[in-house]
Amino acid sequence: MIKIVEVGPRDGLQNEKSVITTEDKFEFVRLLSLSGLKSIEVTSFVKPPAIPQMADAKELFTMVSSELSTSGVSFPCLVPNMYGFETAKSLGVKDIALFSATSDSFAKKNVNATVDETFERMTPVAELAHLEGMSVRAYISTAYGCPYEGEVPHSKLLKVIERFQKMGVREISIGDTTGVARPRQVRASLKEIKRSFGLDKIAMHFHDTRGMALSNILVSLEEGVTTFDSSAGGLGGCPYAKGATGNVATEDVWYLCYSQGLKTGIDLDKLIAASSFILSKVGKETPSKFLKAYLSTGKL
Amino acid sequence: MIKIVEVGPRDGLQNEKSVITTEDKFEFVRLLSLSGLKSIEVTSFVKPPAIPQMADAKELFTMVSSELSTSGVSFPCLVPNMYGFETAKSLGVKDIALFSATSDSFAKKNVNATVDETFERMTPVAELAHLEGMSVRAYISTAYGCPYEGEVPHSKLLKVIERFQKMGVREISIGDTTGVARPRQVRASLKEIKRSFGLDKIAMHFHDTRGMALSNILVSLEEGVTTFDSSAGGLGGCPYAKGATGNVATEDVWYLCYSQGLKTGIDLDKLIAASSFILSKVGKETPSKFLKAYLSTGKL
Repeated sequence: MIKIVEVGPRDGLQNEKSVITTEDKFEFVRLLSLSGLKSIEVTSFVKPPAIPQMADAKELFTMVSSELSTSGVSFPCLVPNMYGFETAKSLGVKDIALFSATSDSFAKKNVNATVDETFERMTPVAELAHLEGMSVRAYISTAYGCPYEGEVPHSKLLKVIERFQKMGVREISIGDTTGVARPRQVRASLKEIKRSFGLDKIAMHFHDTRGMALSNILVSLEEGVTTFDSSAGGLGGCPYAKGATGNVATEDVWYLCYSQGLKTGIDLDKLIAASSFILSKVGKETPSKFLKAYLSTGKL
Repeated sequence: MIKIVEVGPRDGLQNEKSVITTEDKFEFVRLLSLSGLKSIEVTSFVKPPAIPQMADAKELFTMVSSELSTSGVSFPCLVPNMYGFETAKSLGVKDIALFSATSDSFAKKNVNATVDETFERMTPVAELAHLEGMSVRAYISTAYGCPYEGEVPHSKLLKVIERFQKMGVREISIGDTTGVARPRQVRASLKEIKRSFGLDKIAMHFHDTRGMALSNILVSLEEGVTTFDSSAGGLGGCPYAKGATGNVATEDVWYLCYSQGLKTGIDLDKLIAASSFILSKVGKETPSKFLKAYLSTGKL
């Protein structure tokens, strides 16, 4: 069984320019929650107006928590700092996600902190979250390459994984933020990760900026990874390559798993109901070739 | 060294509705011939008006042969029958390509003949071509799946390969005509092909209809295949899925090879000069995510 963590409402929408109403975001999350997905990242508790698309984070999570709490789905939220944690705590969020990166240049541009400083900020957040009984997920950005520093050596990635391991997080999502990871690089790094930490806590988070996401997921599946992040319909984009694709589409991951004989527990047509809804609101075509062919032929 | 056989002028354009002038087709082939590609399939000698896009086959090949004969590039042409062979012979074509399929239903719809009948037609053509000293390439359509018959068992593919082997062809291109091949299916079939025939003569021809081409090429590379067919810029489409992608883009194959540390001998920017030219004439955007990201960022 392969677990797909849906990140469309957060990572996807964050990289879409059209600002979506809270009602439409809620409807997107609601439709996703009917598809069989077991984890849907809803929003990010950043201080307004840092990211306009996330300005309604509190309202959205409140709607999700009051109307979808019996769905059996977990609804993690990104918590960039103590402000985000306090907000999450006040709303009764049970799953939070923290994030760092392998590269100081990227972390500085993204959250105005070095990698060390992100850990200084996160450590007390993680401690408090664990005391509150929250589940903590960690993201590692620029795991394979950084738009400012180029290719990232495995040793740097392993060091950040180790720091999150020590923090006691439940899951570590290894993010190819700008879609530069290459299959042989992914395979080599996973062999080292397996040796040092095992793969139990590892999720892979690929962007399809250069069309390499499915090849990287294939290699990850072969190495034994069972959790992948993706965005319904391929929602999102890449701030470092105008017009390029962002997160790999959930439908693409579904189809690759299906092709390889692996189950995901997701109902494809219900998933497409959610992605078609949000793509129509964003006003764009899906970048997923599988989804286009499936919508055109109605056949797998 | 990985060899890429460029099929854009034939397989790509054949599936584009905009009819391109002979001058523009020639310019496309000329630009391709400057990129380092060593084999460019130019056209198909079908009886007019079977395929309007190929109606200028004689004129186009004559231009290519008179102006690009010193380029060191081979310019194969598709020869569907004795008419095509006689035309090719009269024009001094040195490399021809024949084709069959694994599936009778597909062959019937495509060339109004069963698979057996295509071999009855091709056998004398191949014999005459060999007597003329021509090089003969073979295509096998619907190698992994057929739009009418569904999944194709390996045994059926192996049987068609064997028939072409007996015919003494130089190369056999295994075609996933409608983009339904799955990585584990491709890997399993290549293991059987390797065992029965070796891979020396095998080329893989993937369509990216469902976004699976690069994953299938990755698996093929891992199994030892060194020749791949593709179409510059992802030119082409799929007659069985409206709006879907056709041949995998040559740029995508280039980038996967580059990512895996494999050389192709192709100059990326010169290749893009050719694909940008023809895409502008066809009036469409490339479906290649890598090409879009590269054109947007100017960086690999």
